[in-house]
Amino acid sequence: MPTLSVFTDVPMAQKLEGSLLKAYKQDDDPNKMFLAYKVCMTSEGRPWVSSVVRKTRMQIAQDPSLNYEYTPVMGMKSFIQASLNLLFGKNSQVIVENRAGGVQTVGDSGAFQLGAQFLKTWCQNSQIVYIVSSQKEPHGLIFQDMGFTVYEHSFWDSAHLRLDPNMLLDVAEHAPHGCIFVIGSIGNCRLTSIQWTQLMTLMKSKEIFPFFDIPYQGLSTGDLEEDAIFLHYFVSQGFEFFCSQSLSKNFGIYDEGVGTLVVVALNNQLLLRVLSQLTNFARALWLNPPTTGTRIITSVLCNPAMQGEWRQSLEGVVENVMMTKEKVKEKLRLLGTPGSWDHITEQKGSHSYLGLNSQQVEYLISKKHIYIPKNGRINFTCINSYNIDYITASINEAVCFTKDSEK
Amino acid sequence: MPTLSVFTDVPMAQKLEGSLLKAYKQDDDPNKMFLAYKVCMTSEGRPWVSSVVRKTRMQIAQDPSLNYEYTPVMGMKSFIQASLNLLFGKNSQVIVENRAGGVQTVGDSGAFQLGAQFLKTWCQNSQIVYIVSSQKEPHGLIFQDMGFTVYEHSFWDSAHLRLDPNMLLDVAEHAPHGCIFVIGSIGNCRLTSIQWTQLMTLMKSKEIFPFFDIPYQGLSTGDLEEDAIFLHYFVSQGFEFFCSQSLSKNFGIYDEGVGTLVVVALNNQLLLRVLSQLTNFARALWLNPPTTGTRIITSVLCNPAMQGEWRQSLEGVVENVMMTKEKVKEKLRLLGTPGSWDHITEQKGSHSYLGLNSQQVEYLISKKHIYIPKNGRINFTCINSYNIDYITASINEAVCFTKDSEK
Repeated sequence: MPTLSVFTDVPMAQKLEGSLLKAYKQDDDPNKMFLAYKVCMTSEGRPWVSSVVRKTRMQIAQDPSLNYEYTPVMGMKSFIQASLNLLFGKNSQVIVENRAGGVQTVGDSGAFQLGAQFLKTWCQNSQIVYIVSSQKEPHGLIFQDMGFTVYEHSFWDSAHLRLDPNMLLDVAEHAPHGCIFVIGSIGNCRLTSIQWTQLMTLMKSKEIFPFFDIPYQGLSTGDLEEDAIFLHYFVSQGFEFFCSQSLSKNFGIYDEGVGTLVVVALNNQLLLRVLSQLTNFARALWLNPPTTGTRIITSVLCNPAMQGEWRQSLEGVVENVMMTKEKVKEKLRLLGTPGSWDHITEQKGSHSYLGLNSQQVEYLISKKHIYIPKNGRINFTCINSYNIDYITASINEAVCFTKDSEK
Repeated sequence: MPTLSVFTDVPMAQKLEGSLLKAYKQDDDPNKMFLAYKVCMTSEGRPWVSSVVRKTRMQIAQDPSLNYEYTPVMGMKSFIQASLNLLFGKNSQVIVENRAGGVQTVGDSGAFQLGAQFLKTWCQNSQIVYIVSSQKEPHGLIFQDMGFTVYEHSFWDSAHLRLDPNMLLDVAEHAPHGCIFVIGSIGNCRLTSIQWTQLMTLMKSKEIFPFFDIPYQGLSTGDLEEDAIFLHYFVSQGFEFFCSQSLSKNFGIYDEGVGTLVVVALNNQLLLRVLSQLTNFARALWLNPPTTGTRIITSVLCNPAMQGEWRQSLEGVVENVMMTKEKVKEKLRLLGTPGSWDHITEQKGSHSYLGLNSQQVEYLISKKHIYIPKNGRINFTCINSYNIDYITASINEAVCFTKDSEK
């Protein structure tokens, strides 16, 4: 008898991402370029790696005393402590009071997967999630697949070309009691102290649970403390929260996917209970998290000289980004490109909005073979001295073309 | 107003494992020993690492051409191909016909987590799981937490001190149509060819879906092909199946937790559809799997000289295990310990049943400070020339004591 497959009813899954990169790869044009890589690139167009990483990797490979035994389910203790110190400062209230903790997580999704599983099970009154960020975030799908109701809001105001704190306040105003706010890049959204107070009051009165995303501390302003300073507002107001802290991008070890799901609770007893439940979820997810990335990071964070070198390398990346942005703006000015391009330098970090509309983006892709996402948010570290003239001339062309066609 | 914690109702999670190790650590006796480590130990009592691993790790750390970019969601292609070749042999029917594939997974649980999520969603007629193995397996909980009905069966027959293939046949006989069989260490359970035929016929007629667990290919018999040969029965009978293939233990990189969820489908088209869905689950679980472990393994598997050295290191471990077992048996014989101890050498691999009852185990722990699990299944690589006399004398004492107390 012919056998019937168990998998007969399984359809091909929809590709969720990567179609831009695929189109780029299939393009035969010699001038083609891709400005949407997730990772920081060097001026030679290679993925950036902090200079301390190679040294540390070598030291670890040479260390005969290293034990390759299983890591505890919660992860390496020294790593978690070092990440918490990095995030809050080691004299922070939550650290001194022993009410901040964490579980080592795997990959870029791990912390959200773990946190969402916990919230699904233990916070059953909080099943509505607002993803608020300056951009489209992939973790909406994680919550959605788990049965949460998910709303997404961007505080990038494409009409006025700026991150608008009022949009954030507006979402908080209209969100229901007890929901979850997954908050990305709020540090880049310059809230005034009045706006901070408004936001805290709203979130506090509605008992909104914050779940922060800190994907690359230090790569926004070049200053590690500055990039996480907004957490202090929440700490000082007595919030409990989760935070997905990724440490792959700011070390340049994208292929190790190391992070921490950080938990802040009102007291140590509550913290320990939450961590114990998270550990059980982690046991089912991966059991023992991989350690190469955590070893590299812990070695650097626990050695003042290495940490100093790492900090300098982060400053270097951010200085280059700012220089590139200034150059792009200046070149567009010299070309007489219509419009103000101040929004380019007003945004922090490697990934920023060019402020182009979809027609202009389409023009750049189809006519100039410059691949950028529909929303025009590009990775400025992909621009270097070899391609900046072609890119700025092309942007100028796209803007002029669409201005002309509007007439 | 005093703030109420979001986490007020979260209880402390029950510890699922580790209580034996904890008791061992808290024991102050100078003679204490722990014979239940998951990993193979060297004769010096340190976790075993294949000699090729350190070399390869160094080569990778020194390689300036390495790219630390994100790994694809499915994992490193070269790694997956090498793992499939290792499992089936590169001329196997399923490889030649392009109907075996895999997704790189993380940690010891990753492949089961991923496979269970798929089966939960796409095989809704198969929501009953039988865990059949020679021992208690941790992955039962993964299926249970996802809502599967889980039954666990051991084919270790503690009355006759042997792995009993009839128990396996009995489970298949009584299992309902369309259920899932999670099958561990079946390779160690010597089925006759008649029993194989019976098992295949039963599983085929009931459309039972096999989900194999291959946690340490090569560490059972010392021969990589021999340890996976039972898969050929299923391949040749046209079964579709999943297989959790872990590659951490047989390289001695327990802290990297590298594995593959292997899929065998009836044809390439079905395979691609299943892999596409698995990729979406993996995206939500970790997005990008860590690579150090996969790089080490792929380098070794793709280099014939290194692979040869690795194979020899596996043979070495298994030879040592067999020698230790022979010595234990011989020492018990010389001590005149009542009973036959042939079952020790009849079992394959590092972890085997001593064949002690719970009273004898209790005696060893409380009187002799030798920590072994309740079922008496110990890690024979924890026994070395320094402790073998104490251990065998203690076993003898425990057996004689309980025999006396029976009188």
